[in-house]
Amino acid sequence: MNERKEPTYIYSEKQVAEKSEVARRFLETRTRLNENVDQADNFLVKRFYNLDHNTYLEGALSSKMKELMGLVASAVLRCDDCIHYHMVQSYRLGATRAEQEEAINVALVVGGSIVVPHLRRAYELLTELYR
Amino acid sequence: MNERKEPTYIYSEKQVAEKSEVARRFLETRTRLNENVDQADNFLVKRFYNLDHNTYLEGALSSKMKELMGLVASAVLRCDDCIHYHMVQSYRLGATRAEQEEAINVALVVGGSIVVPHLRRAYELLTELYR
Amino acid sequence: MNERKEPTYIYSEKQVAEKSEVARRFLETRTRLNENVDQADNFLVKRFYNLDHNTYLEGALSSKMKELMGLVASAVLRCDDCIHYHMVQSYRLGATRAEQEEAINVALVVGGSIVVPHLRRAYELLTELYR
Amino acid sequence: MNERKEPTYIYSEKQVAEKSEVARRFLETRTRLNENVDQADNFLVKRFYNLDHNTYLEGALSSKMKELMGLVASAVLRCDDCIHYHMVQSYRLGATRAEQEEAINVALVVGGSIVVPHLRRAYELLTELYR
Amino acid sequence: MNERKEPTYIYSEKQVAEKSEVARRFLETRTRLNENVDQADNFLVKRFYNLDHNTYLEGALSSKMKELMGLVASAVLRCDDCIHYHMVQSYRLGATRAEQEEAINVALVVGGSIVVPHLRRAYELLTELYR
Amino acid sequence: MNERKEPTYIYSEKQVAEKSEVARRFLETRTRLNENVDQADNFLVKRFYNLDHNTYLEGALSSKMKELMGLVASAVLRCDDCIHYHMVQSYRLGATRAEQEEAINVALVVGGSIVVPHLRRAYELLTELYR
Repeated sequence: MNERKEPTYIYSEKQVAEKSEVARRFLETRTRLNENVDQADNFLVKRFYNLDHNTYLEGALSSKMKELMGLVASAVLRCDDCIHYHMVQSYRLGATRAEQEEAINVALVVGGSIVVPHLRRAYELLTELYR
Repeated sequence: MNERKEPTYIYSEKQVAEKSEVARRFLETRTRLNENVDQADNFLVKRFYNLDHNTYLEGALSSKMKELMGLVASAVLRCDDCIHYHMVQSYRLGATRAEQEEAINVALVVGGSIVVPHLRRAYELLTELYR
Repeated sequence: MNERKEPTYIYSEKQVAEKSEVARRFLETRTRLNENVDQADNFLVKRFYNLDHNTYLEGALSSKMKELMGLVASAVLRCDDCIHYHMVQSYRLGATRAEQEEAINVALVVGGSIVVPHLRRAYELLTELYR
Repeated sequence: MNERKEPTYIYSEKQVAEKSEVARRFLETRTRLNENVDQADNFLVKRFYNLDHNTYLEGALSSKMKELMGLVASAVLRCDDCIHYHMVQSYRLGATRAEQEEAINVALVVGGSIVVPHLRRAYELLTELYR
Repeated sequence: MNERKEPTYIYSEKQVAEKSEVARRFLETRTRLNENVDQADNFLVKRFYNLDHNTYLEGALSSKMKELMGLVASAVLRCDDCIHYHMVQSYRLGATRAEQEEAINVALVVGGSIVVPHLRRAYELLTELYR
Repeated sequence: MNERKEPTYIYSEKQVAEKSEVARRFLETRTRLNENVDQADNFLVKRFYNLDHNTYLEGALSSKMKELMGLVASAVLRCDDCIHYHMVQSYRLGATRAEQEEAINVALVVGGSIVVPHLRRAYELLTELYR
């Protein structure tokens, strides 16, 4: 049961939003839309969010590595919001640009050229985060 | 052969568009883009549209329930336009907010966190429709 | 918070397995494989299974209707095991053959001809369950 | 409205089944399972089957080319039955092995390495059909 | 090894951009985002781009036909950028509007109504390209 | 350009096949089917295989971590052969059972209950590999 320690973030969401315009827009929209979800107070959605949170805690694998895995999963399933989210989280946990690029490469080869438009948008975020 | 009676809508598309800005924009864009499709007058596309229409008629299952099923299918396949469409249809057929939320919950659990960004946008529409 | 009452099943899994050979093989394999999962006693997997269980309880929508929605989601995502599972559950909760067929029709039209091989296997189960 | 002329097949399904064991098993299972579907006599399923049949008729694009497109679509969506079906149809309409391989290559590059296990099984059928 | 001859384009990207506003916006965004990718100079991404380029060269199947296959694959996988890309390429290689519509029909029937919102946007591009 | 060093395997494929019956069957089928692919000697397939091989070499991320990422991608895309392959590779590179379980958990939460049947089969392999 070693999946339950909160990770230590190197950067806050606020710092990320100040560094990257792409991240800022993503985080603001997400916060705004989550308000509707929070107000609905749906039992199952809250439990799912909680389960989701638990998935990426420090454990046998580091939080950073699991966020990069979340990035790979998001990229092969081609969800830009999810890609942005896991890239921001990986960055906040100290992932280097080279690590993020290699995670994206796994997604590109597993998922094929259909991933390319998402890769292009991901590289825009990489460029802003790691300048 | 009981799949063929037109349902009775409680609200018109116009009433929905007046209530919700998200719905209005979706319906307008859909109408505008469908004009190109209509003008093309493609035999197979017309037959597909007709088949699609027949799928949701009153039958062994009510139109409302089948629109909610269309919502679940759209959410796990992660198509925002399709999600909006079936939410509007369900609303027009009298689905309550609680029913729509439970349908989305099925999609969330079957489809996973990759559904979450679509759920967020769906809740924005829920908030506007059921205020 | 009305999503939490256990449904009343008309048939037990054992009765279903006696009626349908397809169902029997599916249920036996599932039980055998779940033993490995149970023994692993993974915290997150257990929580996910629990969340999954809660999703289909009686609520604003009946368990039967949500199992049929699970069937639609499984069919458009093309998972035979999941299709079989939700068809068995729907049957145990009193869904008629016509209701199951209409749910599959929604999946067929939303998901396209790629769903057809799964529809064929689903109809084999339908034939056995409703004879 | 030029999508409506039946194609001329060079080989019958029977001849294909005699040449390839993989094709024979696929075709037999498909025939056996379709009997359940035929007996159910579901209005929407029959219309969908009819629409599907119309899609691949001779038109602006040849039936052979559209069957190869069906192969590409089936491969990126990773449905072995559908891949086998469109490979058999393409073969019956005179597609060469090189044409089938290039169609699969498009699917491989668009769909990525997740397509590879299906490609391996497709090549088994290619080997049997074109020996 | 006959997959390696560059195709002859009838129209340049510039000519397409002048004819269609949808194409122009797509091509400009793609060019802008690709700059980040090019500057990153990632070995694997470059090799993937190269492999992708080789896939659509003249061979046993013409480049035009393979671009139309890319369109079918993109449509069933529901990637608007990819759909636009392959429609532009097909147009540049001399595909007629009827050929593009039939390719989209294959995608519609294989992929189902979830393809419809993408079909609507594709028809907007068709209308601009073939006026 | 640090993605190019071959990893050091702790176990050979042969050792894995001796330990696990599930792995043995998977590896044998894969070897047998790959013979058809090898004999076809398709230029693009060979280049894709080569690119795929390069993706998982030691680099900014270890081969072990990238194989676990391949596992996550395979699980959310629901390809049993791909799941088995990356689990075997991760095992051969020293991944612990807890690490494999956590990778699968990321896939379960991102991909939802549709992943569960694949998780069950993955746990069968885990049980055999780590006994």
